[in-house]
Amino acid sequence: MRICLVMLVIAASLPALADEGLWTFDDFPASAVKKTYGVDVTPAWLDKMRLSTIRMTNCTASFVSPEGLILTNHHCVESCLSELSTKEKSFVELGFAAADRAHEERCLTQLADVLIGTENVTEAVMKAVAGLEEMAANTARKKELTALETNCEQASAKSKSGKLKCQVVTLYQGGQYFLYKYKRYDDVRMVFAPEGEIAAFGGDPDNFQFPRWSLDFAILRAYEKGIPAKTPHYLQINFAGPTAGELVFVAGNPGSTSRLRTKAQLEFDRDLPLPTLLLRASELRGRYIQFGETNPVDAQIIVTPLNSIENGIKVRRKLLDALHDDAFMTRKLDEENQLRASAHLSGVDPWHEIEAATAREREIYLPYTFLENGAGINSALFRDARVILRGTEERAKPNSERLREYTDAAIPRIEQQLFAQVPVYPELEVLTLSLSLERMREWLGPDDPVVRKLLAKESPDALATRLVAETKLDDAAVRKRLWQGGKAAVAESHDPMMEIARTIDGDSRAIRKKYEDEVEAPIASASARIATARFKAYGTNVYPDATFTLRLNYGTVQGWVENGVPIDPFTHLGRAFERATGSVPFKIPDRWLKVKEQLDMSTPFCLSTNNDIIGGNSGSPLIDAEGKIVGLMFDGNIHSIAGDYWFDKTKNRAIALDPAVIREALKKVYGADSLLAELGAT
Amino acid sequence: MRICLVMLVIAASLPALADEGLWTFDDFPASAVKKTYGVDVTPAWLDKMRLSTIRMTNCTASFVSPEGLILTNHHCVESCLSELSTKEKSFVELGFAAADRAHEERCLTQLADVLIGTENVTEAVMKAVAGLEEMAANTARKKELTALETNCEQASAKSKSGKLKCQVVTLYQGGQYFLYKYKRYDDVRMVFAPEGEIAAFGGDPDNFQFPRWSLDFAILRAYEKGIPAKTPHYLQINFAGPTAGELVFVAGNPGSTSRLRTKAQLEFDRDLPLPTLLLRASELRGRYIQFGETNPVDAQIIVTPLNSIENGIKVRRKLLDALHDDAFMTRKLDEENQLRASAHLSGVDPWHEIEAATAREREIYLPYTFLENGAGINSALFRDARVILRGTEERAKPNSERLREYTDAAIPRIEQQLFAQVPVYPELEVLTLSLSLERMREWLGPDDPVVRKLLAKESPDALATRLVAETKLDDAAVRKRLWQGGKAAVAESHDPMMEIARTIDGDSRAIRKKYEDEVEAPIASASARIATARFKAYGTNVYPDATFTLRLNYGTVQGWVENGVPIDPFTHLGRAFERATGSVPFKIPDRWLKVKEQLDMSTPFCLSTNNDIIGGNSGSPLIDAEGKIVGLMFDGNIHSIAGDYWFDKTKNRAIALDPAVIREALKKVYGADSLLAELGAT
Repeated sequence: MRICLVMLVIAASLPALADEGLWTFDDFPASAVKKTYGVDVTPAWLDKMRLSTIRMTNCTASFVSPEGLILTNHHCVESCLSELSTKEKSFVELGFAAADRAHEERCLTQLADVLIGTENVTEAVMKAVAGLEEMAANTARKKELTALETNCEQASAKSKSGKLKCQVVTLYQGGQYFLYKYKRYDDVRMVFAPEGEIAAFGGDPDNFQFPRWSLDFAILRAYEKGIPAKTPHYLQINFAGPTAGELVFVAGNPGSTSRLRTKAQLEFDRDLPLPTLLLRASELRGRYIQFGETNPVDAQIIVTPLNSIENGIKVRRKLLDALHDDAFMTRKLDEENQLRASAHLSGVDPWHEIEAATAREREIYLPYTFLENGAGINSALFRDARVILRGTEERAKPNSERLREYTDAAIPRIEQQLFAQVPVYPELEVLTLSLSLERMREWLGPDDPVVRKLLAKESPDALATRLVAETKLDDAAVRKRLWQGGKAAVAESHDPMMEIARTIDGDSRAIRKKYEDEVEAPIASASARIATARFKAYGTNVYPDATFTLRLNYGTVQGWVENGVPIDPFTHLGRAFERATGSVPFKIPDRWLKVKEQLDMSTPFCLSTNNDIIGGNSGSPLIDAEGKIVGLMFDGNIHSIAGDYWFDKTKNRAIALDPAVIREALKKVYGADSLLAELGAT
Repeated sequence: MRICLVMLVIAASLPALADEGLWTFDDFPASAVKKTYGVDVTPAWLDKMRLSTIRMTNCTASFVSPEGLILTNHHCVESCLSELSTKEKSFVELGFAAADRAHEERCLTQLADVLIGTENVTEAVMKAVAGLEEMAANTARKKELTALETNCEQASAKSKSGKLKCQVVTLYQGGQYFLYKYKRYDDVRMVFAPEGEIAAFGGDPDNFQFPRWSLDFAILRAYEKGIPAKTPHYLQINFAGPTAGELVFVAGNPGSTSRLRTKAQLEFDRDLPLPTLLLRASELRGRYIQFGETNPVDAQIIVTPLNSIENGIKVRRKLLDALHDDAFMTRKLDEENQLRASAHLSGVDPWHEIEAATAREREIYLPYTFLENGAGINSALFRDARVILRGTEERAKPNSERLREYTDAAIPRIEQQLFAQVPVYPELEVLTLSLSLERMREWLGPDDPVVRKLLAKESPDALATRLVAETKLDDAAVRKRLWQGGKAAVAESHDPMMEIARTIDGDSRAIRKKYEDEVEAPIASASARIATARFKAYGTNVYPDATFTLRLNYGTVQGWVENGVPIDPFTHLGRAFERATGSVPFKIPDRWLKVKEQLDMSTPFCLSTNNDIIGGNSGSPLIDAEGKIVGLMFDGNIHSIAGDYWFDKTKNRAIALDPAVIREALKKVYGADSLLAELGAT
């Protein structure tokens, strides 16, 4: 990060940022691409990419047929596969192949959003907060965002294009505000997924590693009104895959980066959230694994939560390593001093203001995390209880007065999740709930007032067991009845999970208020001032941090040099068989072993590129200059994790699945001929 | 730490270091005590304290009767209680009370060492390494230490005082070497321990907290030739306990501190050992707890390992917090610069040399930790296998050529442990072994050569299960036969655990060699140069870091101020009953509830002092000016953990059990009249 800023300052005429960057479609540096690669990125090309790319619940995907077929990662649909599974039959393990369209199964809580348009609303937001002091500005800003979203959705509903989902996106830490308008598909169905063994071949040990052999793809289909959606904007797949050195683009929704966060904020991340979360996650990992060991029959129910927790651990381990690099912190400070010197800011120094706010954040971090962020009551059923309790309270208020997550615009998504009868495994609920209660008692101390409220008479284990055994919230109909019954129905409920939510909601809202007033508000105000200074110095030649909204970047297919050894950018099918041990996570599924002789072992499997991606880009199409898919992003190498903080050109690499191995698998292993035909494979 | 050094430099006439300090008995600042408190600490008084204080396996204790009675902490004898327990009957849970001397049960692996004398051997060691370059010096130094110990033991065996245990102690990071000579008791028996529920009341949540109500004491007895040892040097207990503000001393064996470690070394600790160990320990904690959840019948077998891991987690969490304090790192740097400026060192800067060595240590830390330090093969049976394999190899070499842990002086202790038929629970062995193998594969990567050697064909779980099922090393007789059979017997053994030890021992020794040559050797050399500079500047007014050898310090009974609230230095029995929830760890044992009405609720329970203690001081006597025991140290407050790095006068407090509650318990709850009589209680 320092490298690019310094480059811009000392040599503003250099092409901006080389291949680094999480560019919005509004500000894509087409001229830099033209200059470096001689390729024209036209507005029409950009529109096509934008309209073919999809934001899923926490991933990216793309349309790959005119009839709604969606290509994404297996790990992006793992929760859908879990939700369709039972204890007896796990689609995560077995894979899924719809015999025909009638057997495509709806993912109960999946969404697919396509970005139709964006609108700069910075001025409206700035006007709403003008002249207000920090806390008042923070409240006024949220009100304005709610109003902008509500007005946008209401206006679209009346237009002929049909109702859109509107969301205000905060760019540059509050330097810009945009309204993003999405066409939303809420009926997305499972079409094909390979067995977990091959999709996640290498498992956690190979996660974020390259060379790699994970067949991490899956296929869904968007539906509208019960029939396959018409999707004229889609991307063709070039099953030949790319070549080394080829120019490639990634369109997708990088989730979040911290490249513009201040040093004080990064030190806070280093000292509190990262290590504490790692400790809690590692313990939970141990409990999941031991649960599987002692309950082999039920072991499959921990697969998906375990995968998720292990991925989180690996990411945070490497983030922590990155923040322990004192040289990076020094660069960060230099960068701040440079901007400070050029900015000539009046009033309180905004970096100091942020430092003071993070000092306050350190003080309230633990209660805020355990109470309001739910780390102390880790249970899906409790989360439902809280949503029902707060949602009914908030809905009774005017839209603009509500907590932002309960505005009218947010309600449909809440209801989709709350009313879905997804499986809840009581033994896992007790496990996560008792562990989290125990840790809350450990970290806040046994004499903390909230801890006393919950645990004065029961052990964490006894409380968790009782709550899970006695609550009826595992029944979607019960949840729906309470939600729709509103405040009166909720007030009458003596469901123990609702009681617990009620018991602590006052404390929880209080610590949230404190956080918003004393941490969020001053940081928002100071960040906006820094953003203004940065625009003045660099304009939009600096890209905004990732916000799980649509971005585009470019790069080339290439490996890197690791400890002096060059890493080839392609892997091939044959090596996966050599590397197999016969045990998960290095087990090749039987179905593959049976047809081993027919497979072309020289088929390219995975490939690496220097595109600048981050979590959320999973499932992104890797696109060639013609706009065809030449890869499916599913990971980065180990150095890519530090990409949260800065882009290391020499080592940060993105990892894609080569379309060639998708074709080989669908054709020879799965005999998915009609699917191949719809994908245009010859 | 910086505060005291700066004080000394700018005002050398100030009393040294106030109440801070881990003083050796040779260099105790009696004049400072006299000046501040008006109390004479005479050589006779010091001798008595020294000869009454005991070093246990990893704790401190003291003689409290002329017939070998030993007072220490319950948590110090927990492993002994575990070793005497079975799955069906846990003395950790039930407590232990010998009906009479004939029923005092021998602790299978406990030792009790009394420091008889010390001898400064710095000159001999310096002479042995004079003129050698780093690596050669490192080897020569070790040879000299072995020779000094061996000669000392041989000489003592011929003297009339009888054979002593001799150990060279490295003080001031290599600035001084002393021979410590101990009288060793290897027959130590369990006399009394309360139930785990009251001994560890508050459990992990209350660990390192004050106010506190843990009855953390136990009583052992030293035996010689099958009868109670004669121990004329013992301490009387003053059951009235101390008063607030009273001058008190702690004699004990603080385990290790890092106050003289360099900034580069502390940064290494912060970035690698602490966070990685915390991750592994947290996961293991989760697995133990879940094991207990799903095997309620066997749950007691995890109690002791879980307590140990939880204590380790809490300590390391707070150590990490302390090292994240950038202000402390800045003070550390200032201190180094100050010493550097005053030292006028020639040649390479030793701090830079240490920094370079830690950079190398960062590179080899993971393989060294997983292989040589055993983090990748965490199993008691594997550790036995390695001891047998290496021990038989090493014993075939001349004494001075051996790895230091297998010299003649070390053999008796090895044999005590190896030949003891302590319980081994196969299910826990599989748990720790499979977890550690999995993590080794995760951290070193599946393609690491050693990982491939172990796991190319078996999963971590399958390998662990097979090894534990098939090894015969759980039988002490088998271990003894192999050990005594020497190299030939070991070479013939196809016990799978022996095979595994053999498979990786070459790699393991290789990484150890690398560590010794490239990390240990340059650090030893540079540290000695820093120590010389430090002596030149400050003499022995600076105390050496803790080395699990006998130290003495002084302070007063006092509380502290926490967030503006003064904490009283005493707690009382009544509050324990108010705080009980009925569930472990806040459960008062039934035996106590039955006699509740007879108890004096105003009995002092625990107390805090500002003595400078650290792990290893557990079980230390808290001594008044008359040399009587007025407390039993068992913990420090949460701020005491950072005492590893510096002593915070305002907040660092030690925690002791008040003798009054020991008497109240022995008299009214346990009816231990003869024990009370032997302790001289009226």
